[in-house]
This record gives sequence, structure tokens and C-alpha cells, in this order.
Amino acid sequence: MSLDFLFNPKSVILIGAAHTEIKLGGVVLQNLLNYGRPVYPVNPKYDELMGIKAYRTIQDIQSPADLAIIMRPAVEVPTILNELEGKVKGAIVVSSGFAEVGESGLQDEVKKTGARLGMRLLGPNCMGVFNPIRKFDTLFIARERMKRPRKGNVAILSQSGAIMVSLFEAIKASNTGISKAVGYGNAIDIDESDLFEYLVEDRETDVVVSYVESLGDGRKFIDKARALSESKSLIVLKSGKGASSSAAAFSHTGRLAGKYEVFASVLKQFGIREAQDFDELMDASKALSYQRPVKPNSGRKTANRVCIITNGGGSGVLAADECMRHGLEVVRVPQNKLTTLKGVFPNFYVLNNPVDLTAQVKDDDYLTVLNELKDEYDGFVIIALPNIPGITQKLAELLKGFREKFNKPLVSHIPSDGISGRIIALLEKARIPVYPSPERAVKGLKALLS
Amino acid sequence: MSLDFLFNPKSVILIGAAHTEIKLGGVVLQNLLNYGRPVYPVNPKYDELMGIKAYRTIQDIQSPADLAIIMRPAVEVPTILNELEGKVKGAIVVSSGFAEVGESGLQDEVKKTGARLGMRLLGPNCMGVFNPIRKFDTLFIARERMKRPRKGNVAILSQSGAIMVSLFEAIKASNTGISKAVGYGNAIDIDESDLFEYLVEDRETDVVVSYVESLGDGRKFIDKARALSESKSLIVLKSGKGASSSAAAFSHTGRLAGKYEVFASVLKQFGIREAQDFDELMDASKALSYQRPVKPNSGRKTANRVCIITNGGGSGVLAADECMRHGLEVVRVPQNKLTTLKGVFPNFYVLNNPVDLTAQVKDDDYLTVLNELKDEYDGFVIIALPNIPGITQKLAELLKGFREKFNKPLVSHIPSDGISGRIIALLEKARIPVYPSPERAVKGLKALLS
Repeated sequence: MSLDFLFNPKSVILIGAAHTEIKLGGVVLQNLLNYGRPVYPVNPKYDELMGIKAYRTIQDIQSPADLAIIMRPAVEVPTILNELEGKVKGAIVVSSGFAEVGESGLQDEVKKTGARLGMRLLGPNCMGVFNPIRKFDTLFIARERMKRPRKGNVAILSQSGAIMVSLFEAIKASNTGISKAVGYGNAIDIDESDLFEYLVEDRETDVVVSYVESLGDGRKFIDKARALSESKSLIVLKSGKGASSSAAAFSHTGRLAGKYEVFASVLKQFGIREAQDFDELMDASKALSYQRPVKPNSGRKTANRVCIITNGGGSGVLAADECMRHGLEVVRVPQNKLTTLKGVFPNFYVLNNPVDLTAQVKDDDYLTVLNELKDEYDGFVIIALPNIPGITQKLAELLKGFREKFNKPLVSHIPSDGISGRIIALLEKARIPVYPSPERAVKGLKALLS
Repeated sequence: MSLDFLFNPKSVILIGAAHTEIKLGGVVLQNLLNYGRPVYPVNPKYDELMGIKAYRTIQDIQSPADLAIIMRPAVEVPTILNELEGKVKGAIVVSSGFAEVGESGLQDEVKKTGARLGMRLLGPNCMGVFNPIRKFDTLFIARERMKRPRKGNVAILSQSGAIMVSLFEAIKASNTGISKAVGYGNAIDIDESDLFEYLVEDRETDVVVSYVESLGDGRKFIDKARALSESKSLIVLKSGKGASSSAAAFSHTGRLAGKYEVFASVLKQFGIREAQDFDELMDASKALSYQRPVKPNSGRKTANRVCIITNGGGSGVLAADECMRHGLEVVRVPQNKLTTLKGVFPNFYVLNNPVDLTAQVKDDDYLTVLNELKDEYDGFVIIALPNIPGITQKLAELLKGFREKFNKPLVSHIPSDGISGRIIALLEKARIPVYPSPERAVKGLKALLS
């Protein structure tokens, strides 16, 4: 069964709807009011909620619906599912109080009930769905408390609602946007693998960010992740890596975290990108959202040759250190190219890799180096400390032109301050991602090379 | 000889002063005009520069001075030093074009000349000195292009001018401030070790941030770093870790980077803090600038027991993963404490470590946990996702009160968005550092535990 009903339901039943946004059931109802399709709120005390017809019981709803959202205490969920029989394709069980607090028996009952009724389940203990393209939003956080990210090409799949919220904030700060987002919690039925499978065909998604705490079926995960990686850029962040944190992950969603080292080595074996922490996840997804990753050329096995062009020596060295940590090679500039560059630049420019154009740099120098070295490297890190007269908005124009002409992976580090704001905005508009440290720029570039 | 003349000279000679801020010698002159003590600009073409008396030659200056700043081409530097004989205690050689571009012979000549004349040298190829407490500023970056950080308790020692500038930006973003900053470049005479020694007695400095690319005398470095660590919080970031990046570091300052692994193991052996990258350096220095590190209590060897209190499960798990990477132990909550907490909290709160107060949290819950567990742990990570109704400004007041009363290491992760701005500001005013990701909060806490 396609998961379309989850992202774009023809109609929605909200069980546990409330009349006020002080209650979570009211927040969700408010968010659903923007959805252009029928919403049937259920609450035994009301005939009308927030200006639309409400239903005292599920039985009172005569129209068939696609999806139910359940926001009632955990113990009521099995009964509610039975009442939904034949009315919906699936349900989002927002309620918590299941395996994550030791109530595994209740969780099993919910799982079995869903299976018996042929009803797909998201959750329980989950955040639900956000689809900005369809304006479908089941999150129990008011818009005033969390501005939603804009539309974009990044899909977010998060086992944790908290991380989904944090990812939203980071997405906004990255000048990227969301195609679809799902917080799937305890994953008793629909899990990351099902969502990977669904997203293979999703034309609105280029990048898939997957935050996983624990895996149900490891083999299925790998199969679906590999299939997805063929058409989209997938990045996985696995948490619960150690004994104590894996216990925490278990508590959080009630699934076993498994042995991390095994998981990581399998990901690596199949070429599936893994981020080590939250920042790396966002650094990679920003780059992948802006640019397409490249394959190695001229018979080499990997595209991993990086050139760093900087106007600050130290920043270049930090970037080179980070390259080393990621298996990226900061190979020397070929002798003939070096000779050419020496002919056009002052003698105090340091023409190695990193190419250090020093505080005396002019905007055009970056383009001179890029043009000369474009065929020698797989990707470039541009570091521009904007506190000196030679760095102006023109740099953004030059890099934009280069990027459009040659389509080479190109990321940038520019420290954020008053003067750099405009340059950063121009670069990011030109789909050149800018990062707040040399190391983070390299993490971004790494995602584009394979 | 004390290095006071470098940070607080009685008077300054500026060789290579210019009449306009388009030239670097003009920028430095402009910055020196704010210094309340005599400045003698030297330029063969002017009798007056920027409203003060200028000198055609060094010989024309009759008054003795403390310090010279040299901003003339590299080849002129030996002659200039000879002309300064007997006039100054030392000189900042800003000029580049020495060992970093292969001119080691010229660099040696400068070194020998300084030694023969008994003149201490900073540089060459360096940024110079910034001392906000004395308003002494030799940086060749105009204030309009780089707003200076405010006064504070962090000293910055950077071999790289670029990194010094980036550190300034990061210091401003951290709501911390600078006691003294030195960019010392090729370090032919005054190096990080000399500066460590000087800072031992500096009452304005609590934290020393040391960015090092290459070491002259490794033993001296370790001796002085150990001595400094007894009274101040020292954090070292060593770049040039690998073959290619260490070649880059050599190009950059003309000193050999040495074998990184040896350096790192010696630092560890002597308990000197090392940061792995720029962000970690800043995360640690922010925490150390806000709070004093603690020693282990009750006969334990290390203070490494961490409690994570969160309202988002996933964020807690990521923090726990990061603790594991740093050798911090996320030990379980003792059974008797667990029983107490279970008695006061709803059953869907997940009472492990991390303590997950869920999206239903109220501000007071954090304080309840802190009060109950304060003697069980060495430090606390507070994670508050502010998008839910239960998190308000009151949280900042409660944490402030706890921190003032118990003086326990306490760091926080709050994603930055519209609603959280006020809470973050209040917390940082109360000297509780707030970080943009769970992992970075842990990096901050790590610096406070030893």
C-alpha cells in the first residue's frame, strides 16, 4: 500500500481534538484547519470545534476517511483502533506511554490490532507528519512556537520528535527547505525502511535525512537505504551508539539500538552516508540540498581530491586537518600549474594546497586559482575572511559564475559578521553553501564527494 | 624581561605609518590613535599623519619608546631593527615574506639581529596585539571591518592572524570577552611558551585559548603549559595534524609542525586540555569563561559523571553519545532517587539518565531533578526544546538560582529560534553557557570536568 494517505490524505479524523490551543489536541486541530481537505474532529463534549463540525464519537462520522490521528491516552488506543475499522487506511498514534515507559504489552496489543484490521500505523509516541507542499501539518506544536521551514527538497525522517524540531530549526538556518517530514516514534509498523521505499519515487525530494535510534529489521533497512541511495542523497545519523546511550535510546522508543559498530560498518560497505553527530548531519544535508554529489572521473575509484583556497593560512590548515579526518586528499598543486600561478601572483602568496592568498588578496584571485585548477581537483573549499579590503560582494558574483559554468562541488567558509552577511546571502542564493568554520565546510564538501 | 611592553607600552613607534586607511599602515595608525600614550609614526614623506606629528626617519625620534611596530617590506626589516637600537625594548614585525614563502635566510638574519641588539621580537608575519583593557590595538584590520570583542577574561594566543579574527567573531557570539589577544606568526623569538609564562601572573585572564600550528621547543611548551594550567584554564588547538596539513602549516609560518600524535599524547599525559577543532575550542572556552572547572570529589580519580536532563528524548540520546566519545559517564540514577522522582512525576516521564521529561514538561521539573540528583553527578547538561508551552523564561530563573546556590558545572542546549532568544540571553547572563546542539553542550561540559 502506498503511503500517500500519510502525506496527502483525502480526509482526516482527529481523535482527541480540543477547543483550545492550550491542549495539544487543539494545536493539531488548528494546524489541520489550513489543510484544504475535510477534517473530522472527534470529542465527546462538542458538536463544533474551532468553527467546524465536530463529532461526539467515531461512529458519528459517516464519510470514509484516509487517515486518523489519535491523541488520546495510551490505554484507549486499542479500542479507538477497533472503532476505526473500515473507516481509514491508517492512523498516526501520537499518544505516548507505550514501550518507552515499559508498557510493551499495550504496545503489542496496538500493533496486533492494527495488523488484524489491515490498518497501517505511524508511531506510537510520535510527532507525525509535515508536508509543506500540501500544507498538511499534524505536529502538536503551535506555529507561533515553531515557525515551519519553507518548501524545499529535503525530506526528514526522525524517530525522535525533539530531533525533528531541531532539524527544522537547522533547516531554516541553512536556507534550505522541506519536502516532507515524518516523526515516526516507536515504529511498530511504518518505519524508516518503509519511508525510504516511499521516497524513492518522490519527485519533490532530493535529499533524505534519517535520524535513527534503533532498528527493527536491519537487513530491510540496508536494502531500502541502498535502493533509495541510487536516486536520492541519503544521510543517516544513528544515535544510541554506546552502552549508556543505547539504553537511553531504548527507553525513548522501546526498540533495541543494536550494536553500533556493526551498523556503521555495513553502512560504509554499501556506500551509505553516515553523519557522526547533529552538526555533521546538517552540514552534509545543506551541501546535498544545494548541489548534486559527483562521481570520480578519469578512472579513479573515489572523488576525493580537494583544493582549499583561502585568504587566511590558519583557516586553511584547519580545513586540511579536517580533510584528513574524512579521507579527503589535499594533494599538491601540479608543478606546471604552480608555475603559471607564480607568474601572476605576488611572491608572498603561498602557492601550495591550501592556496593561501593572504590578507592582501583581491576577489579575482580566487577565480584565477579556480580556473587554473578546476580539472585537477574533485571539489573546492573557498575560505574568505571578509575583514580585509580585498574581499567584497564581487567574490560572490565570481564564485556564482564559476559554479554555474563548471558545476564542480564548491563549498565555502566565511565567518559570519556584519560585513559578510551580504556575501553569504548572495553565495547561498547561488547554491554555494557557506559554513561557520573551516571544518564544517569540509564536512559539507565530503557529502558531495564519493 | 616582562612582556608588559608588548601589551601596555609606554609609547609606540610605528614604522610604515600611512596617511590613509586604504593602506594597512594607515589602519594601524588609526587604531593606535585611541591609545592614551605617545605614538610616533614614521614615514619619509610626512611631517604629520592623521593629525599627529610624524617622523621622516627613526633617528628623528628623540624620546625613548617601549615598542616598535614594523610594517615595511621584509627586506627592509634588518636595517630597521639596527636603526631602532637602544630606542625600544622590542618590536612587532608585522611584515610577511619570510620563512612562510621560503625566505628562511632573511628570517634568520632578523632573528640574529634582534638577539644581538637585545630586542624582543613578535612575528614576523603576524597580526600583533589587542588589549581591550588598555585600548591598545595594533591589528591591521579597520574597526569598521571587524568590530572588536568586548573586555573579558579570555586570552587568545594565535599563531595565525586568520584564526585570531575567527576567534574574535566566535568570542562575540559566545557572549564572552577578551583580556588580551596576540597573533604571533612565525615566532622567531616570542612564542606561545613565553606568552604562557607571562599570562600566569595576569589577573585579567582566567582562560587561555592557544591556537598552535608548529612548535619551536616542545619541552618548553609543555613546561610552560603545565605551569599556566595550575592557575588558568588553558585549551590548546593544534593544527597541521597530518602530512598534507602539516606541510601547509609549515608554509604558513615556516616552523615544522612536528609529529602530532606525540604532541597529543604528551598533552594528555600532563592533563592539558586539547580541542580537536575550531568549534570544540570555542565550546570549551565559552564554558571555561563562564564557570570554573571542578575537581573530582569523594576520593574518585576523575570528575566525569554526567546527568542529562531533557524534554526531548532524541536530543538526550545524542548528548549521551557525545559523552561516550569524551570519556564522560552517563551513569544511571540511583534506585532511591529514582523512587523519589517516580513519586512526583507523571508515569510517562522516562526516568533514566538521560532524564526525559517529555513534551509535557513544566519548567519546575528541571529544578526538581537537579535538586534531587545534585550530589550524585559532577555536572549537568540541561536540554530544553522551547517550542512547547511548558518551557518559559522561568526556566532561566530556576537554573540561575540553582547555579548560584550549588556552583555545579551546568551547561545547556537550547535550539536558537524566536521564542528561545530571551531564555538564552537570561541563561548566559547567569553564566550558564547555551549551545546550538546537544553534542556541543557536552563539549562545553567536558572542559569543566577533569
